[in-house]
Amino acid sequence: MAATFDITGIVQALHDARHSWRQTQRRNSEAGNREFPSRDALAAIIDSLKGVLFPMRLGPPDLRQESEDFHVAHALDAALHALLKQVRRELAYNAGLRGQGGRPVDEEALIAVRSLAAALPGIRALLDTDVMAAYQGDPAARSVDEVLLCYPGVLAMIHYRLAHQLYVLELPLLARIVSELAHSATGIDIHPGARIGAGFFIDHGTGVVIGETAVIGERVRVYQAVTLGAKRFPTDAEGNLQKGLPRHPVVEDDVVIYAGATILGRITLGKGAVIGGNVWLTHDVPAGGRIAQAESREGAFANSIGAS
Amino acid sequence: MAATFDITGIVQALHDARHSWRQTQRRNSEAGNREFPSRDALAAIIDSLKGVLFPMRLGPPDLRQESEDFHVAHALDAALHALLKQVRRELAYNAGLRGQGGRPVDEEALIAVRSLAAALPGIRALLDTDVMAAYQGDPAARSVDEVLLCYPGVLAMIHYRLAHQLYVLELPLLARIVSELAHSATGIDIHPGARIGAGFFIDHGTGVVIGETAVIGERVRVYQAVTLGAKRFPTDAEGNLQKGLPRHPVVEDDVVIYAGATILGRITLGKGAVIGGNVWLTHDVPAGGRIAQAESREGAFANSIGAS
Amino acid sequence: MAATFDITGIVQALHDARHSWRQTQRRNSEAGNREFPSRDALAAIIDSLKGVLFPMRLGPPDLRQESEDFHVAHALDAALHALLKQVRRELAYNAGLRGQGGRPVDEEALIAVRSLAAALPGIRALLDTDVMAAYQGDPAARSVDEVLLCYPGVLAMIHYRLAHQLYVLELPLLARIVSELAHSATGIDIHPGARIGAGFFIDHGTGVVIGETAVIGERVRVYQAVTLGAKRFPTDAEGNLQKGLPRHPVVEDDVVIYAGATILGRITLGKGAVIGGNVWLTHDVPAGGRIAQAESREGAFANSIGAS
Amino acid sequence: MAATFDITGIVQALHDARHSWRQTQRRNSEAGNREFPSRDALAAIIDSLKGVLFPMRLGPPDLRQESEDFHVAHALDAALHALLKQVRRELAYNAGLRGQGGRPVDEEALIAVRSLAAALPGIRALLDTDVMAAYQGDPAARSVDEVLLCYPGVLAMIHYRLAHQLYVLELPLLARIVSELAHSATGIDIHPGARIGAGFFIDHGTGVVIGETAVIGERVRVYQAVTLGAKRFPTDAEGNLQKGLPRHPVVEDDVVIYAGATILGRITLGKGAVIGGNVWLTHDVPAGGRIAQAESREGAFANSIGAS
Amino acid sequence: MAATFDITGIVQALHDARHSWRQTQRRNSEAGNREFPSRDALAAIIDSLKGVLFPMRLGPPDLRQESEDFHVAHALDAALHALLKQVRRELAYNAGLRGQGGRPVDEEALIAVRSLAAALPGIRALLDTDVMAAYQGDPAARSVDEVLLCYPGVLAMIHYRLAHQLYVLELPLLARIVSELAHSATGIDIHPGARIGAGFFIDHGTGVVIGETAVIGERVRVYQAVTLGAKRFPTDAEGNLQKGLPRHPVVEDDVVIYAGATILGRITLGKGAVIGGNVWLTHDVPAGGRIAQAESREGAFANSIGAS
Amino acid sequence: MAATFDITGIVQALHDARHSWRQTQRRNSEAGNREFPSRDALAAIIDSLKGVLFPMRLGPPDLRQESEDFHVAHALDAALHALLKQVRRELAYNAGLRGQGGRPVDEEALIAVRSLAAALPGIRALLDTDVMAAYQGDPAARSVDEVLLCYPGVLAMIHYRLAHQLYVLELPLLARIVSELAHSATGIDIHPGARIGAGFFIDHGTGVVIGETAVIGERVRVYQAVTLGAKRFPTDAEGNLQKGLPRHPVVEDDVVIYAGATILGRITLGKGAVIGGNVWLTHDVPAGGRIAQAESREGAFANSIGAS
Repeated sequence: MAATFDITGIVQALHDARHSWRQTQRRNSEAGNREFPSRDALAAIIDSLKGVLFPMRLGPPDLRQESEDFHVAHALDAALHALLKQVRRELAYNAGLRGQGGRPVDEEALIAVRSLAAALPGIRALLDTDVMAAYQGDPAARSVDEVLLCYPGVLAMIHYRLAHQLYVLELPLLARIVSELAHSATGIDIHPGARIGAGFFIDHGTGVVIGETAVIGERVRVYQAVTLGAKRFPTDAEGNLQKGLPRHPVVEDDVVIYAGATILGRITLGKGAVIGGNVWLTHDVPAGGRIAQAESREGAFANSIGAS
Repeated sequence: MAATFDITGIVQALHDARHSWRQTQRRNSEAGNREFPSRDALAAIIDSLKGVLFPMRLGPPDLRQESEDFHVAHALDAALHALLKQVRRELAYNAGLRGQGGRPVDEEALIAVRSLAAALPGIRALLDTDVMAAYQGDPAARSVDEVLLCYPGVLAMIHYRLAHQLYVLELPLLARIVSELAHSATGIDIHPGARIGAGFFIDHGTGVVIGETAVIGERVRVYQAVTLGAKRFPTDAEGNLQKGLPRHPVVEDDVVIYAGATILGRITLGKGAVIGGNVWLTHDVPAGGRIAQAESREGAFANSIGAS
Repeated sequence: MAATFDITGIVQALHDARHSWRQTQRRNSEAGNREFPSRDALAAIIDSLKGVLFPMRLGPPDLRQESEDFHVAHALDAALHALLKQVRRELAYNAGLRGQGGRPVDEEALIAVRSLAAALPGIRALLDTDVMAAYQGDPAARSVDEVLLCYPGVLAMIHYRLAHQLYVLELPLLARIVSELAHSATGIDIHPGARIGAGFFIDHGTGVVIGETAVIGERVRVYQAVTLGAKRFPTDAEGNLQKGLPRHPVVEDDVVIYAGATILGRITLGKGAVIGGNVWLTHDVPAGGRIAQAESREGAFANSIGAS
Repeated sequence: MAATFDITGIVQALHDARHSWRQTQRRNSEAGNREFPSRDALAAIIDSLKGVLFPMRLGPPDLRQESEDFHVAHALDAALHALLKQVRRELAYNAGLRGQGGRPVDEEALIAVRSLAAALPGIRALLDTDVMAAYQGDPAARSVDEVLLCYPGVLAMIHYRLAHQLYVLELPLLARIVSELAHSATGIDIHPGARIGAGFFIDHGTGVVIGETAVIGERVRVYQAVTLGAKRFPTDAEGNLQKGLPRHPVVEDDVVIYAGATILGRITLGKGAVIGGNVWLTHDVPAGGRIAQAESREGAFANSIGAS
Repeated sequence: MAATFDITGIVQALHDARHSWRQTQRRNSEAGNREFPSRDALAAIIDSLKGVLFPMRLGPPDLRQESEDFHVAHALDAALHALLKQVRRELAYNAGLRGQGGRPVDEEALIAVRSLAAALPGIRALLDTDVMAAYQGDPAARSVDEVLLCYPGVLAMIHYRLAHQLYVLELPLLARIVSELAHSATGIDIHPGARIGAGFFIDHGTGVVIGETAVIGERVRVYQAVTLGAKRFPTDAEGNLQKGLPRHPVVEDDVVIYAGATILGRITLGKGAVIGGNVWLTHDVPAGGRIAQAESREGAFANSIGAS
Repeated sequence: MAATFDITGIVQALHDARHSWRQTQRRNSEAGNREFPSRDALAAIIDSLKGVLFPMRLGPPDLRQESEDFHVAHALDAALHALLKQVRRELAYNAGLRGQGGRPVDEEALIAVRSLAAALPGIRALLDTDVMAAYQGDPAARSVDEVLLCYPGVLAMIHYRLAHQLYVLELPLLARIVSELAHSATGIDIHPGARIGAGFFIDHGTGVVIGETAVIGERVRVYQAVTLGAKRFPTDAEGNLQKGLPRHPVVEDDVVIYAGATILGRITLGKGAVIGGNVWLTHDVPAGGRIAQAESREGAFANSIGAS
């Protein structure tokens, strides 16, 4: 009986392709076995922490207020231990990347997760300001519950505020996975390194990108497809990319940025500035300043206008 | 044995954070216990209704045409009763928000779900026009089946047409959840309050936003990242946002709007108008009018052009 | 006992709506029973093939390097047989659309799946160049593992490179479903017909649209919301859309296109060209050319700047 | 790196073991690929048919009486089509065993499933008499619902009455699987070939065995660990087992058989006979007869009495 | 197209069968809609309570001792509320059977569940004696953990001790379902009404039956297939079965009953009595008494000895 | 708001009950945290090994013979690694019970799993003889496939032969769990320590018990409710149970034991002996001997014969 597929041959060719890649990467087999943090595990942990932060709305459907603390204690305990495992993976992975050394991974992991745990009440308080900002900023919002449960911008902020804490604790992989989970669900891409003040509201949100060194004040409002990006990537004398230099905008308190605006480079939007939709902006705007896109006008042109 | 985490302390701090929020919100415990409609339940209901509307393509994989009606009867009956539960939750929740009064929740819920049920055949007929519009509007489409099963714009329209019916029945929370489910899957954000005529086609779709009071005629075609938004939020004498005033565009029959166009305010795009890609538009366009973006030209500029 | 809902009546009305649609479509019942490829089945197949291509990172969590080949052989065998079923469905469906004839479906399906299988090692090698491009192109990337596991652009490329192979094998429905799965997860919409060279990197990605006849060279970099679209749809003498004509841009090696740029029509961007953010472009750009958007400036305008 | 396990070697040895077995069995590869009916599929089908027979008690938990027929139609249709697949497998398997020939498998399968379907209302009526017998026979039973939902003897009878129908339709494999499903759940082993009249009640049930040619009248009651077995297996002149000869007891109407009784051979228990617990019986009992075990008495014996 | 099955006809016949049964039962449609306690729900509740009683061994696999109380509080709270729902169903069902009246169902349910909750610590202490008895009674047992996790007799006792509490609280349906769950998994059938003292050990267990009014002392040991049954069902003057009269054995402390023994009627086995295997016993045994089965001897008999 | 349940109080009382038990057991918290092998994990491992042993019948439903080895390699590799984890748990647990010392757990575990792996081909060959024995021993069996898939006795033997290998490798906990899984599904309780020759057949099986030191030859046949037990437990001078002494029967080749027979103590049933149903036997039987139960006879007795 002739086999349907030449499995053996293809397996060998795939084996060779992996081998050749690993040689390029000077990667030994031990490195290959190093476990990477698991996206699915983190998704479950973040779901649990949502229920820890907002037990009556994002916790189990049957929860009663009298039992909130029981649920919170149980879910928190389980989530922190699950997170501990993932933190150990990232620390071991990073240690592998840079060669061993330094404080043992287990101890370091425990310190990190304890810090995150201690930060949770503060994160809840910050998220309450975000929820309130969405409620007040959208004429269609009927209640804070609706905002918490339906608004993609709020979902993105819950992920961001947890991811940012992981980033501060020097767990960039975990932070990235947490923010990508929100990116996939909402189309909102906030780098965990960005610093965002209280009362931040993103409406609609699809296509929003906020870069790693962006600094955002309090009560800022942003609409869909807004980019707070880098104008260029600074390089050193040898032409290598320089990491960590401030390269994204500073947005002061009470700024509003309408849909599709592109704000690039380490510029500053002064307190209360209003940036119009579709604007392209690479220079500072003073406090209270207003920037708008020139209006498009009717023109004579053939049937050459599409963009499908 | 020292505990790994100070669960008790963090639970208390989270308890205090919730308490302080609830005091701000003047929310008593009874309100906290009020059940909110469930996103998961609605997702399942909408999936069932898709199978009710298109049994051979979106129903169970093994269905045969001779058994369509059995499946439809069974699934419809189950979905309507499941929906009844969610409608009751929204009505009870709303009644809680505004203080009791008026027709009893159970009776009102039954009336609403019966209305939705009666509207389903009409919704099916409308969706058939949307499917046909996609089929005719995309040179790559090979069959209406392909369009129904693969096009994100069609998925968004199925959700929208059901959500709009819920909106009309004064169930804004349910409507919102249904439309957010499509928003998350497709990047297309249509407010359930918008009014959209037959034969509507959204190609690609990511980033499309259509506002609450938008009015769209028949055979309109829209591409990715198009915004039909509000230019400003009208306020009353005291500076409060005025709800429900018409503030989004009116788009007449046979209009085409290319990718990235931003159309703002209660303006009218006349029958057959064509709006070019990336256009920024806040004024009326006459019937048959054409608006295009000025072309970008090569310029001398340093390495400062990025937007990452 | 009066029934809660008039199920029988609504079922009949839905029956009539289907009947009337089918008459319009001149669709007999046999056609209705023709099975369409299953999105869920394809999602599972693609997940398996990801593990076949990158066993240690996208395969089962507990895999060890010593067992890679066992896993690859088993998963590959199962995935190819599962794919065979779906390929048969598409071929039978297509045969139904155009009337029978030609080589029997089973034989044709086997040839197609064997071709895809044989192409996998080459696809793996190409994806390695995409991963490396992302690693080198993003200053924030710490390791190739991180890139492979976290970057939506890489996910989109895995789907695209598999979908493109299906497209080449004249399985456009399967190809489309595979690419829509990535579109939904990432907001990146690459038509499987596009031709994309090695080392392609999409950063952030939400809103990217790449059309069917686009041709992209090596080491090209693209940011969020970039469109490589058609300017118009060519029609023949009778005004029918002409399919398959080249209508999307040609992008040569080493080009960079920043966020939000819209590039339309069969134009050519020469080797090493740099296209600025938000640019609107419908003409050729020479090798090394640079195109930028005019900067928005502060203007005096009323409170009419929003786009919500 | 040395492999943890010698997978390749063990795989080869297992391969050889299979090969050697298949040679013994003179089994070619085609036979090996012949599909056997699936136990899991039958378990699901039987669960569905339980809901078809008793929709309000064994159907979906939320069913309302007004919707019973919708559920029954839908579930029946799906279950019959699923059964059709399994019937085809048994018929094809059997055809393979005895060489092809006779009526085509598909046609035969359809006839069989139609027969089963037509028998369902009669099976329901018979099961009603079994439920009533349990209710009347057990002083502890409080309602017929309790009996239907809690009594293992009733579960065994539902499986038996369906399995018997399959047996009559010459589908012995399917019949066997259906009865083994009940055997595993209840410890009651009724051969599908047995013929059992209305109003049969098995109390407790663990260890009951009823053989293939047993014939049981109406209103018979049986307790745990009762065997209705064969005394010997008749052989023909060459010493081969003779199949199908009557070899199990005939139990007439209104007989009661207490726990642990062993009744062997083609004997007859006359109408209304009562057989005591632990009895060993291989001869006829007249109508109204009573058989009892001699009482055990206290004896002088060492500590050698156990049976652990 | 002729339908594959006459679904409509069979549905009608099944409808008629149900109708005719309901008429016999004088059951109105309201009664039919009365919800019965759910076996699946109870299975989940009992599983939770097992983890509440033995958190480190029967609770979640990752539990650590330091977090036991958090888990117990959370799981207990959830399980009790879930049980409350099922208790309400039984009380409402019972009220329906006997006509309304008496204390409202909700209040009564709350009292019952609170009683059960208060009894849990005592049940845990009793189960500890059962575990210890198994550990000491079986020479093969290596640790109490092994006993708790592997012995079917211990599983049966956990179910029994919970079911007995439900029985005492006059929730016979729930009690029965809980004990049938164990019966199906272990072949051990203990009526929840039986009264069983501390340190009870059942070895192997398949086929054990213990009746409703059995009374068992402390440190009793029982092997597989032992029946503690009724000799006859007492009837009153009109010949109706008299419920609740003591009709099963009294077994005093330290009795051992070997495999297959059948003990019938309200007899007493005195303290320390030993009953041999397969014994048939319907009279009292004094304290310290020993009863054994006569040995079977070799005999001349044809090939008529089987019991298959 | 008064709490529905006094969770805090009950949690404390349960805490106290656990504490008091642990004090009795002189169990420190470390011991409590020691992980026990997981029943669920073993169930999954055994299911995989079934597919490894019989890939076409007990492996994945879609397997084709040409791909058997790929499946076997993959499943074997995964199952052995999963088993390695469970073996480590047992060894660590046992080490905890007896105090540390001896060969390190990891090394010992690897040796054990390698031994089991090497034994698999031999186990497959033995199981083939069991399957054949069932096929030849039951006049109703139509094919070896039917026997393998439907007969509880064969299922019990697959578990037994694997469990026995674990027992021989001094992993008694794992062995016990594997055999209890079969006990629960079939009612057949074979101690993993028993030694059973080729071609063993158990018919019906419910209630069969085979003790730890039983020795069974080749081609032995056993029916339901047969016990091969110990007559007494030998004790040493101090009255402690002596472990490991031979205390169960020796059954030589070609013996048949009919239903319900109880065979106790270290007696020998000679080659070809036939033991009748319900027999009680504690002495040797010579080769070819036949033992039968005296027949029960009709007697005069009141209505006192039941055993319900």
